[in-house]
Amino acid sequence: MTSPTLSCVACGETTSEWSSARCDCGEPRWVDVDVAGFDWDNVTDAPGMWRYESLLPVDRPGSLGDVAGDTPLVRTPRLDDVAGARIHVKNEAANATGSFKDRGSAVGIAWALEHGVDTVGTVSHGNMAMSMAAHAATVDLDCLVLVPADIPAERLGNIAQYGPTLLRVDGDYGKLYDRSLELGEEAGIEFVNSDAPLRVEGQKTTALEICEAFAAEGAQPPDAIVLPVSSGGHASGAWKAVRELHRAGAIDSLPRLYFVQAAACAPIAEAFERGDDEVTPVAAGETIAYSIANANPPSGNRVLAAARETGGAVLAVSDDAIRTAQREFATRAGLSVETSSATTLAGTKRLAESGAIENDDEVVLVATGSGFKERGSGETPDVETVKLDELGAVLGVER
Amino acid sequence: MTSPTLSCVACGETTSEWSSARCDCGEPRWVDVDVAGFDWDNVTDAPGMWRYESLLPVDRPGSLGDVAGDTPLVRTPRLDDVAGARIHVKNEAANATGSFKDRGSAVGIAWALEHGVDTVGTVSHGNMAMSMAAHAATVDLDCLVLVPADIPAERLGNIAQYGPTLLRVDGDYGKLYDRSLELGEEAGIEFVNSDAPLRVEGQKTTALEICEAFAAEGAQPPDAIVLPVSSGGHASGAWKAVRELHRAGAIDSLPRLYFVQAAACAPIAEAFERGDDEVTPVAAGETIAYSIANANPPSGNRVLAAARETGGAVLAVSDDAIRTAQREFATRAGLSVETSSATTLAGTKRLAESGAIENDDEVVLVATGSGFKERGSGETPDVETVKLDELGAVLGVER
Ligand SMILES: [Zn+2]
Ligand SMILES: [Zn+2]
Repeated sequence: MTSPTLSCVACGETTSEWSSARCDCGEPRWVDVDVAGFDWDNVTDAPGMWRYESLLPVDRPGSLGDVAGDTPLVRTPRLDDVAGARIHVKNEAANATGSFKDRGSAVGIAWALEHGVDTVGTVSHGNMAMSMAAHAATVDLDCLVLVPADIPAERLGNIAQYGPTLLRVDGDYGKLYDRSLELGEEAGIEFVNSDAPLRVEGQKTTALEICEAFAAEGAQPPDAIVLPVSSGGHASGAWKAVRELHRAGAIDSLPRLYFVQAAACAPIAEAFERGDDEVTPVAAGETIAYSIANANPPSGNRVLAAARETGGAVLAVSDDAIRTAQREFATRAGLSVETSSATTLAGTKRLAESGAIENDDEVVLVATGSGFKERGSGETPDVETVKLDELGAVLGVER
Repeated sequence: MTSPTLSCVACGETTSEWSSARCDCGEPRWVDVDVAGFDWDNVTDAPGMWRYESLLPVDRPGSLGDVAGDTPLVRTPRLDDVAGARIHVKNEAANATGSFKDRGSAVGIAWALEHGVDTVGTVSHGNMAMSMAAHAATVDLDCLVLVPADIPAERLGNIAQYGPTLLRVDGDYGKLYDRSLELGEEAGIEFVNSDAPLRVEGQKTTALEICEAFAAEGAQPPDAIVLPVSSGGHASGAWKAVRELHRAGAIDSLPRLYFVQAAACAPIAEAFERGDDEVTPVAAGETIAYSIANANPPSGNRVLAAARETGGAVLAVSDDAIRTAQREFATRAGLSVETSSATTLAGTKRLAESGAIENDDEVVLVATGSGFKERGSGETPDVETVKLDELGAVLGVER
């Protein structure tokens, strides 16, 4: 396997030298993929997301990485009324570590195996750390996870269970992102951070699967795909996916891509609102959607471009709206989603109210992660107690 | 859709009248399925487990029920050494509510929709309750969940999030199982308890998928399938599945079925050990594998028959062995499994030590549920803190 070329989405500069580092213009690079010959009819019957192996820069890595992706797309009619459109949910909680991150991790791990790298790393305090640690464990790679010094114990426990090398880092967590790339190159550790080129390749398969599911029904792609956005890595993947499919002629039009942030930390949404091409970092506020609270998103500019080019938008929603949407996911779609994923429904309501999304639009919400991992969030429900021998009376069939 | 006939696995008595109630001989009934014409080549491309629709008594119900099943089978080479066989894990955590229960719930819900039942019910304090509540919510059926009065708050919260009607029942929880069936018939509530005929139909698809995955590789079924066992509903499903496949000629031999209990509450394992045909209820001891601690398993006798007919066994493992196995699932297979699921690895080690399972046996462990839902179980890991500007030195690339 030779290294593919990388190109900068912003300035077009191309390099054949592999590196997760950024273009000289400051923007992230992504992998150039040859889409010639791609067609829905020639996807393979490989497991998981590897059915799209012709669009991926690596071969499947074995074990857990082989089953990343291939998550269910659920039609959820009881969300239609509250959302204001025809809703489908892409349930990324079905991945082994409970989030979409497994797709990018699988590609990163496959790369490491193909290139003789024996340690992978990541900067994360949540889903991505769990995912990298788990996938590395299955193929006996070392995994270094750098977490913020003040990470809550329960989240640390979620990551530690997979046995990675963990380090709490005391200092600016935003700066750690850049520092990890520098140190990784020197130390021979492949950092597969949130918007690393390898991770974006894996994460584009979410949108490939969505478009294929519609194509399988003889339909065009959905009118809109709605994703939570943090660093911009998954968003970049979705954009790259629909561009590649369009270029290959597998879809006739691009779905509109909508990206949602939590209002307390919404630098990309604010830049979009202002009409800016570049994101200005903000001071992070507190939000229940902690996993997307990124005050200085490294791929933020790319998200702005993705929204504009596809006719979508970037918007922000309140914690109250997120809470309500999370409850509706559970009580109307039977899905326990994490707070960050609930932003997609909250955002869709706003878009429907403004007319950007219409009643008969087919809209896919990407539920990026499982609610089961966010502990201690629920209150104790108030539930009546009855005696066993009074149960018939309570049910109205005896007295 | 007409009601299928039901027959008693113990005495052979057949009835054409639908009921979840038991045979006059006291044993559970199951659904008679016509396997004529079934072949791996004529499974459909329906979503989830509905590819086996010709072996199921209902049509798929829409929404969440449509995507039940179709879970990954993961080859996990790093478990081979510790287990003493070639290990594959069937990861049921990928189901929407994080456990295999979604398969049975989907069938129960489909039945209710086809027969105009507007309320479904279940007696459960865990996975089954979450599953029924979630699936009912997606098709706007009412769902009554009967839980023990002393259920821990966090488990109650897991169930309550989906919005079912919840009742705590104060009294003998074992008796509640029988009482729920009586009251359900009177009140028009379809109780889809753990070993109800409808649930067994759904839960047989776990083993159908396992055998099909091996057949797709041109292989015979695995040498052994290892499941945790509680009421015996899933175990009955696995047995029924391999019987039907064998009868249809789709497999040449039956995999050995092994069932594992926690030693503190192991009535079926104890009966197997004694060579009994019938299970004697025990006084329940405390175990970390609470979700399989069933002191009086309603399908226990059927489990004994399944183990004996297939050349398998029923065994019990200690809480210490379960804890070790749970850690190995995470650090070697990248899978966070619930304590009850970890019994499968602990049990396989015992079977390998005794020679019942050999080194080159292909063994499938059914990881029935996600570890993410068992909260507060982890200790706080002890993790070093470093300053950001000292990170290079710690990684050995700067001083
Ligand atoms: Zn550039
Ligand atoms: Zn009988």
